[in-house]
Amino acid sequence: MDSTSLRERQKERRRARIYNVAIDLFKRGGFQTTTATDIARASNVSRGTFFNYYPYKEAVLLDYGSEVMNRLRDHAETRLHDGAAPLTVLYEIWDRLADENTRERDLFPPLAYEVMNPNPERARTAYQALPLSKVIELILRPMHQAGLMRTDLSLQRISNLIADTYLMVALRWSAYGTERPLQEEMRLALNLLLEGAVKRDPRS
Amino acid sequence: MDSTSLRERQKERRRARIYNVAIDLFKRGGFQTTTATDIARASNVSRGTFFNYYPYKEAVLLDYGSEVMNRLRDHAETRLHDGAAPLTVLYEIWDRLADENTRERDLFPPLAYEVMNPNPERARTAYQALPLSKVIELILRPMHQAGLMRTDLSLQRISNLIADTYLMVALRWSAYGTERPLQEEMRLALNLLLEGAVKRDPRS
Repeated sequence: MDSTSLRERQKERRRARIYNVAIDLFKRGGFQTTTATDIARASNVSRGTFFNYYPYKEAVLLDYGSEVMNRLRDHAETRLHDGAAPLTVLYEIWDRLADENTRERDLFPPLAYEVMNPNPERARTAYQALPLSKVIELILRPMHQAGLMRTDLSLQRISNLIADTYLMVALRWSAYGTERPLQEEMRLALNLLLEGAVKRDPRS
Repeated sequence: MDSTSLRERQKERRRARIYNVAIDLFKRGGFQTTTATDIARASNVSRGTFFNYYPYKEAVLLDYGSEVMNRLRDHAETRLHDGAAPLTVLYEIWDRLADENTRERDLFPPLAYEVMNPNPERARTAYQALPLSKVIELILRPMHQAGLMRTDLSLQRISNLIADTYLMVALRWSAYGTERPLQEEMRLALNLLLEGAVKRDPRS
């Protein structure tokens, strides 16, 4: 162990330092204008070392996005375990995501674009680092098992569509800005996906 | 008129020639690898003249996308006028869009990316050139007026969400490819948006 695990710990510490420095620079100076050289210099490593840890600048953001997703999943698991209704939990997660996105509104668009990167390898990496649809699936599964959801579409497909809708709504909100807060935009879209656009007739 | 209208006609003819040559080059050689210089040379104009007509290469694609949208709108208007049910017309439009997108699968991703261009001016131009949500709104309006659609979300917002969903589904299909044809992916997503993910209880 010893020397290997020591080296591993050193690597992890260095990665954490680079990550923290980079996120701090992104928040203060903006993602686009911060270069790999800036990050390397501010974290006392060479540019080459930076690229050993993060092959491209957006990869730092993926670590940030992963962290957000982990927090959302933890919250969902705790709430479901405590007996909260799945749809309540889903709206809670949705609101937290809206909050985080609104607070860090400059970090989210490059993250969203990364998921849609024309380079399929990078898009896949981003998609796996940001498992929003898995969190949604986890929340809706009890409802699905209780027979409350339609079954002609798989739960995975439904969860993917909900996660993709977040992406579009958040991108439009960032690009155009609207009078409405992101939270409201996101709630309206989620409600449409859950309830449908065609009126439900209570008397049929 | 005369000389002015003659000049106008000449301009239109030249624009049409550049457009046709460009689309042909995109289809044969791919959008990414075809340069503005290639297009200018093949249509016998200078690079500067090309940029007078199309300030960037993607602007040629917007003309193509506009044409597709016009055809969809014409079809929808004719069918509605003939008394077809709005939802039938919507699925027809959807299938035609899937067809066109499948046939020209290399032209659509750069079009979709243009709608999400980080440059807001370009994104807005693309959005206006591709009024899919307006076509959807036109189709759903009779249903809305007949009280068959929910009214807590505006028809415009519902139409925007449906149009945006097409964008995401088509981008994912282009990027990852699935075993399913695009038409099927699009139908499933449209059905989810119309009917909702939560089961409709026929006995309540």
